[in-house]
Amino acid sequence: MITTDVVDPASIRGLSKYGKVFSTTALDEPALNQLLPSIDILLVFFWPSFLTPENLSRMSNLRLIQSILAGVNHIPFAQLDKKVVVCSNAGAYSDEVAEYAWSLLLSAAKRIVDFHNAVKAEQWSLRRTLGGKEVTIMGEKTLGILGYGGIGSAVARIGRGFNVNIYAFSRKPVREKDVRAFQGDKGLSRVLAKSDAVIVSLPLTKLTNKIIDADKLATMKKDAILVNIARAELVDESALYEYLKTNPDFRYATDVWWYREERESLKTVSPFFELSNFIGTPHVSGPSSLATGKPAKFAVANVIRFLRGLKPKNIVDPAEYLVTDRQEY
Amino acid sequence: MITTDVVDPASIRGLSKYGKVFSTTALDEPALNQLLPSIDILLVFFWPSFLTPENLSRMSNLRLIQSILAGVNHIPFAQLDKKVVVCSNAGAYSDEVAEYAWSLLLSAAKRIVDFHNAVKAEQWSLRRTLGGKEVTIMGEKTLGILGYGGIGSAVARIGRGFNVNIYAFSRKPVREKDVRAFQGDKGLSRVLAKSDAVIVSLPLTKLTNKIIDADKLATMKKDAILVNIARAELVDESALYEYLKTNPDFRYATDVWWYREERESLKTVSPFFELSNFIGTPHVSGPSSLATGKPAKFAVANVIRFLRGLKPKNIVDPAEYLVTDRQEY
Repeated sequence: MITTDVVDPASIRGLSKYGKVFSTTALDEPALNQLLPSIDILLVFFWPSFLTPENLSRMSNLRLIQSILAGVNHIPFAQLDKKVVVCSNAGAYSDEVAEYAWSLLLSAAKRIVDFHNAVKAEQWSLRRTLGGKEVTIMGEKTLGILGYGGIGSAVARIGRGFNVNIYAFSRKPVREKDVRAFQGDKGLSRVLAKSDAVIVSLPLTKLTNKIIDADKLATMKKDAILVNIARAELVDESALYEYLKTNPDFRYATDVWWYREERESLKTVSPFFELSNFIGTPHVSGPSSLATGKPAKFAVANVIRFLRGLKPKNIVDPAEYLVTDRQEY
Repeated sequence: MITTDVVDPASIRGLSKYGKVFSTTALDEPALNQLLPSIDILLVFFWPSFLTPENLSRMSNLRLIQSILAGVNHIPFAQLDKKVVVCSNAGAYSDEVAEYAWSLLLSAAKRIVDFHNAVKAEQWSLRRTLGGKEVTIMGEKTLGILGYGGIGSAVARIGRGFNVNIYAFSRKPVREKDVRAFQGDKGLSRVLAKSDAVIVSLPLTKLTNKIIDADKLATMKKDAILVNIARAELVDESALYEYLKTNPDFRYATDVWWYREERESLKTVSPFFELSNFIGTPHVSGPSSLATGKPAKFAVANVIRFLRGLKPKNIVDPAEYLVTDRQEY
């Protein structure tokens, strides 16, 4: 059962070779309710609102949930039967999101937004300087990458062109010889302390929720740049606001936003946009990537692996996603 | 004679081994006037105002002018004796300016400034899309580099990390096998027509003045991105404004500004900042690079080459700089 309209017709035809394919956009509610008990596989973009706990409990045949979004933190793990395998779509957006991460990093490093707005408002003059602190030069500096999966390694590939030294925080071993990899809480602190800029590309799980808190921010360089293209909840909102306010040379650039009432929201508790060391864009790193059709094809290919009896890629561990304090956002 | 305070003491000591060094910041006007006829070499940052045509005509011993700015279009070539050799400081800022060029390119590609301001003004919502046109993905696209010197080749090096195809407009042959190089007016048109983004890193000379005019803009893709980190005069101001206004998907991002009364000025004839497809920063790509001390050391090393009887690097052809229509800016 496909619950989104982002899957192209050719991919749907491909899937049809292995079984019956139903698209929820073509079904009315009674038909849908009748179908639910027979569905083996769910291909979702974002978790559909009609799959309430009650409806989900009627899907006794469900064996696989494949997400087209890269992350799976939208999936109600607590309500799933143990036999259901959940697959993320990690890797499907890697190149595009890594490009976006570098765009945010460089915008912050060169203060592009701030300078543009200052010139526009006639609040800057040529030859006025900040004593050489106008722009942060990345060459020969250290870039920390938190989470060295598809996005992280694409970020590193781009980083090599900028001649940065790369430190990674990764629980899996990193094969590239020019990347220094660290694990565990101490390893994270080491990466943060060493880095001139840090890109967060971790999945949001119980283990990584608020992984960047007040203590971790305090280990970073006072003029470092923190970029988040993963999930806002990886960073403690109020701790971040306080840190940005008291450390004007520190910069935070994000495309992702904290959850409010179970949905990502541009409305933040703290007034980040009053700060000139904050850059925020409205989670746009995905849609253009989606428009290429690649993420849907990537997800469909994984479903086909499963249908052919192969082990699908990107199986997630539900235990890591059973976040109990989600309601606070 | 050194006319700027950006040269470090160690470099001045280095120069002193080859001759007497005078710093104009330590001299009063009578002393300065007395010295001028004996000066062999001028090390300048920007052309100093005290070197009026009259004072310059008294410098009968002058043999070399070394610029610490990368470009030499600030130097009054028309007033120089033929025996005076002028050296640019090409290459001294290459890595830093190439980084900056990519920052402008990616800011425009991902509409960072526009999105940030829209979210700040609460004029955007999550999941609102531009049908996949939110962001331009650079991977697998074509990048045109106009002027393949130090900056141009550093821009290409960074581009390889983004997996872009590289087209160069260069009068010198390009050695890198993955770069397709073109020459002449037809070659320029070819590069412009093919490119999804173009970075201008040409020197401003009589030959390159307004090299991007209405005709050349019209050869570019309607949704291309043009980045200028060289000199504003390479692009025809009014033609550019008209083009941006009538082609909202086309984007221009610049750190450099047109001359007004013989000086670069943030005041433009056309109201560029009213357009959302324009990004402008106040020529900040240089100062932080200057703060590293590298450009001054680079320039001093070239002066020492000259003092040791070697041919200095970056000798420019005065004929290319005898622009007769400068007054129009």
